[in-house]
Amino acid sequence: MNVSNTRTGMPDSWADAAPVLIAVAAGREPADLVIRDGRWVNVQSREIIDRHDLAIVRGRFAYCGPDATHAIGPDTVVIDAGGRFMVPGLCDSHMHIESGMLTVSRFVEAVVPHGTTSMFVDPHEIANVLGIDGVRLVHDEALIQPINVFVQMPSCAPSAPGLETTGKEITPEDVAEAMTWPNIIGLGEMMNFPGVINCDHKMLAEMAATQRAGKTVGGHYASRDLGPAFHAYAAGGPADDHEGTREIDAVSRARQGMRAMLRLGSAWYDVEAQITAVTRLGLDPRNFTLCTDDCHSGTLVHDGHMDRVLRHAIGCGCPPLVALQMATINTATHFGLEREIGSIAPGRRADVVLTGDLESFPVETVISRGQVLSDVAGLVDEVKDGAKDPFPLRFSWPRESRNTVRIGRKLTPADFEVASPPGAMAARVRVIGVVENQAPTKAMEMDLRASPEGLLDADPGRDISHVAVVERHRASGRVENGFVSGFGYRGRCALASTVAHDSHHIVAAGTCRTSMAGAVNRLAEAGGGIALFRDGTELAFVHLPVAGLMSDSPAPEVAGQAQRLVDAMAECGCTMNNAFMQHSLMALVVIPELRISDLGLVDSVGFAFTDLIASDGAGEGGRFES
Amino acid sequence: MNVSNTRTGMPDSWADAAPVLIAVAAGREPADLVIRDGRWVNVQSREIIDRHDLAIVRGRFAYCGPDATHAIGPDTVVIDAGGRFMVPGLCDSHMHIESGMLTVSRFVEAVVPHGTTSMFVDPHEIANVLGIDGVRLVHDEALIQPINVFVQMPSCAPSAPGLETTGKEITPEDVAEAMTWPNIIGLGEMMNFPGVINCDHKMLAEMAATQRAGKTVGGHYASRDLGPAFHAYAAGGPADDHEGTREIDAVSRARQGMRAMLRLGSAWYDVEAQITAVTRLGLDPRNFTLCTDDCHSGTLVHDGHMDRVLRHAIGCGCPPLVALQMATINTATHFGLEREIGSIAPGRRADVVLTGDLESFPVETVISRGQVLSDVAGLVDEVKDGAKDPFPLRFSWPRESRNTVRIGRKLTPADFEVASPPGAMAARVRVIGVVENQAPTKAMEMDLRASPEGLLDADPGRDISHVAVVERHRASGRVENGFVSGFGYRGRCALASTVAHDSHHIVAAGTCRTSMAGAVNRLAEAGGGIALFRDGTELAFVHLPVAGLMSDSPAPEVAGQAQRLVDAMAECGCTMNNAFMQHSLMALVVIPELRISDLGLVDSVGFAFTDLIASDGAGEGGRFES
Repeated sequence: MNVSNTRTGMPDSWADAAPVLIAVAAGREPADLVIRDGRWVNVQSREIIDRHDLAIVRGRFAYCGPDATHAIGPDTVVIDAGGRFMVPGLCDSHMHIESGMLTVSRFVEAVVPHGTTSMFVDPHEIANVLGIDGVRLVHDEALIQPINVFVQMPSCAPSAPGLETTGKEITPEDVAEAMTWPNIIGLGEMMNFPGVINCDHKMLAEMAATQRAGKTVGGHYASRDLGPAFHAYAAGGPADDHEGTREIDAVSRARQGMRAMLRLGSAWYDVEAQITAVTRLGLDPRNFTLCTDDCHSGTLVHDGHMDRVLRHAIGCGCPPLVALQMATINTATHFGLEREIGSIAPGRRADVVLTGDLESFPVETVISRGQVLSDVAGLVDEVKDGAKDPFPLRFSWPRESRNTVRIGRKLTPADFEVASPPGAMAARVRVIGVVENQAPTKAMEMDLRASPEGLLDADPGRDISHVAVVERHRASGRVENGFVSGFGYRGRCALASTVAHDSHHIVAAGTCRTSMAGAVNRLAEAGGGIALFRDGTELAFVHLPVAGLMSDSPAPEVAGQAQRLVDAMAECGCTMNNAFMQHSLMALVVIPELRISDLGLVDSVGFAFTDLIASDGAGEGGRFES
Repeated sequence: MNVSNTRTGMPDSWADAAPVLIAVAAGREPADLVIRDGRWVNVQSREIIDRHDLAIVRGRFAYCGPDATHAIGPDTVVIDAGGRFMVPGLCDSHMHIESGMLTVSRFVEAVVPHGTTSMFVDPHEIANVLGIDGVRLVHDEALIQPINVFVQMPSCAPSAPGLETTGKEITPEDVAEAMTWPNIIGLGEMMNFPGVINCDHKMLAEMAATQRAGKTVGGHYASRDLGPAFHAYAAGGPADDHEGTREIDAVSRARQGMRAMLRLGSAWYDVEAQITAVTRLGLDPRNFTLCTDDCHSGTLVHDGHMDRVLRHAIGCGCPPLVALQMATINTATHFGLEREIGSIAPGRRADVVLTGDLESFPVETVISRGQVLSDVAGLVDEVKDGAKDPFPLRFSWPRESRNTVRIGRKLTPADFEVASPPGAMAARVRVIGVVENQAPTKAMEMDLRASPEGLLDADPGRDISHVAVVERHRASGRVENGFVSGFGYRGRCALASTVAHDSHHIVAAGTCRTSMAGAVNRLAEAGGGIALFRDGTELAFVHLPVAGLMSDSPAPEVAGQAQRLVDAMAECGCTMNNAFMQHSLMALVVIPELRISDLGLVDSVGFAFTDLIASDGAGEGGRFES
């Protein structure tokens, strides 16, 4: 049987497929696939239309109407929807694949059973490591997926020029080039909002290149100031924003002609506070979309993806059809794709989710471009038999993308030593204070006694650990040291990671220099990942060989490794919620208050380097009781 | 004073203007124009926001917020809106300029006081006369207007290949070329719906060229059949339709992912029956737009344009904010222009209408691209003083466009003679039966006695007139003769017109061959228009020198000429409502039942030529009582 629902890769364009679409709709040629007796969730008209059929050919809808009998031929696969809802495949309007620590293919494999058939991904992390070449790799891997993965060209690498170095930089010329690629849908989130407001010529050039290409400038206005600064940002061109956290944020963005992207990630809970703009204030919902931004593999495996966001939005009081519009057609319209995805209508890519209930939203069958990718309901014989692999195309990440952890030499415990000021018995040091469930850190000052060898050591009793950034892109051998408080590490342990936003050097933190050196060296040998060492030996390890950020193992495997890491961290005394995120953000110098980059300790309020030693000698107040 | 609200022509792109927009919003540079204390009609969020200000620079909105004081410099023009509503400039989603018998500039001049600042025009008529060159002239004239006139490339010239000849033809290659022009927004209405349904390769090639250019295929499905034929048409690619007349038509189009364009033209009244899809059934209004399709100059002068449609929609029970969305942002989104027009938001072209009431909608001040074009309210000193011409750019239609009426020779009464079959005393002839207020004609058969000279003559007593099509594009000298009933002409008169849909030869109808020859010759001398002759002399004349379709005189002048023509037609016995439209449609061979083209009498049900003489000798039933 030669049916096109076994095809993968991009479908024919509507223009190319039109003669066949017309012929199927008119009854002159048979469809590849017909779905019968479903409840058509029509997000265009915001209606549910009972007892309708869909006919699909060449990966696109040819006929959506009351009776597709005329489109059924001897080789047509027929699915009886049995009165289930036929919903457009769900769209994630903004996200970073790297947050799942998975390659594009593995991420897609994980989200398909959750009904996601379109994602708008900003490979910002890989851009920091591999530059435009890394973006191209993501772009190319995205193109061969059986669902729609549209790529946004990252805008801000480095995030903080002058305060950090990256593996590679993204230039306005890179952006202009990327806009010519077939699968680039726009510019990734413009995080440098002070730059936009102050007319930074590089940021404006990137946005202009995007607008001139007729594409969408992604926004990121992470500020509570809705005065002229916000208006200036909106005037600069960003067309959406997912950083809002309050109802007024969502309202303001819609009023300014931007789309408010409401976010529910693994650690972001921004839907509930903002969706009241629609449910309470009654704003037109067309300018609201749903997104995840960042999802861990564990979330994907255990909780879901866009189905989770949808259920949550409905749980917040949003009518199901309105929430579905936010997860389908609104996103399609935003990116200029409403004639391509986001609705069940003739000519569009045939992306359908079958579900028995619109509120609890059990995802039963998932069809993308006319191909059955997931079928929990067991409606389709072929998938039930397991005879076909819906993901036949494999992407091979090249050697240079697997060889990105270059520290130049084997590190020793001495690399993590911090000398006391000459002759001082103690010193007051600046300490990064991580706060549970908050992205900003506190800029603390704490007193440390000098050891007999003249070193300033971690002090687990007062929850003071070492922290270090090891330059890993240029093999410079540079190590920057500091101190951190808040993780609660006990004993002699250290955690090191090549996921270290945004420039993704190695960030290590721990109570023991031997374990720090051990963990960092392990990452260098393995080509990336996260390593927890105790007493100099490995306790847990997550292997992320692609750019030091991603694994090409299946999501459950990566989620399992990550869970073992979390468990082991707890054994070492770190029970903070989402501690690894705090770890990986210690180098994120664009967020207040104190951070550490590969160039030194950074005052991320004043955007300047600062000294680790605040003053010689211990401060007042007798902080050495222990 | 050097303020940019005196500029004309296209504004800087958002990308080019961004640095200044940002600087104005941030308060670093002054705006050109600030509107204070208005009620912001926010069609994005569907809200009215009181006491807000707008700051405009370089023809675009820079700031839309509660207080634009920081954007006011010494040279900023400040308008006190005095609590008036600030509404986005109105958008006409589909229309033909030629229906106003005015050039683009004269049409624009007429509609600006009615609040229209964007029009999507399909120069289908001029394409039939001048081909792609005529479309380019409209395109170029559109580009220099002070409002936004986007051009759709006509798709169907000729409308009925083989049954008529046109001045020029439009080919798929023409369409592909036009898609590269800066001001082409899509393909004009695809009227050949049987061609689409049957996969006519030329029609499909035109739609494919449009889709590949990322532009919008206009639809025209003038049929009540909503079965597979309709679905096949939708599968072919047309993205909108303005031919719906019933609620179910509007519903069906929205469900199929098309936009339902609700039409109120001079003679079209299709809003009331269809807008219930929103007001009664509660469909999401986003896929509904308002349009005029065809407006006579008299309508523009006396009744209005998009303001008239808006008032009508509100009068039909549509909430004003929803009706306004249909006349602004919905249209912008449809054509991929929502970041350019259709809302009051940063970066968009500064098109604003000030009005004191959203229901009666008096248009007080009209601003397009930051330039005050009309100011009935007298809010702006400069316009009040009449010191500036808001329409300074003039378009000169070239000589070849004014020399399109070529009949090859001077016609004589003999050209309109119809010979009786040899030896017959009478004949049964096929007669075009025009019906008041209906586009279709009736295919009648009537008996005519032969004159002593062997000719079949008009018979005013039985309301039978001569009708003729005179080939006027190629100077072939061809004249096709027939008979028509329904106009009620008495005495010895004839009306001739170079407006003769769709191929725009000369259509003449009358009771007297001498007057027919006189009227036709008059049009040939004048280069086009409409002439009414009685007893061989001119009774009324509308001069349409541009392509024989349009005048470059002001709208009131053309409307006055047209009114005098209507009055004169009544003097000649023709009191049918909208009689000139019936006259001009007699050659429209795509509409049932009987028509006449430059190639002969056409059975426009069977799409074939038919004989004028149905049978020799008079039929039964004694129809010669007179």
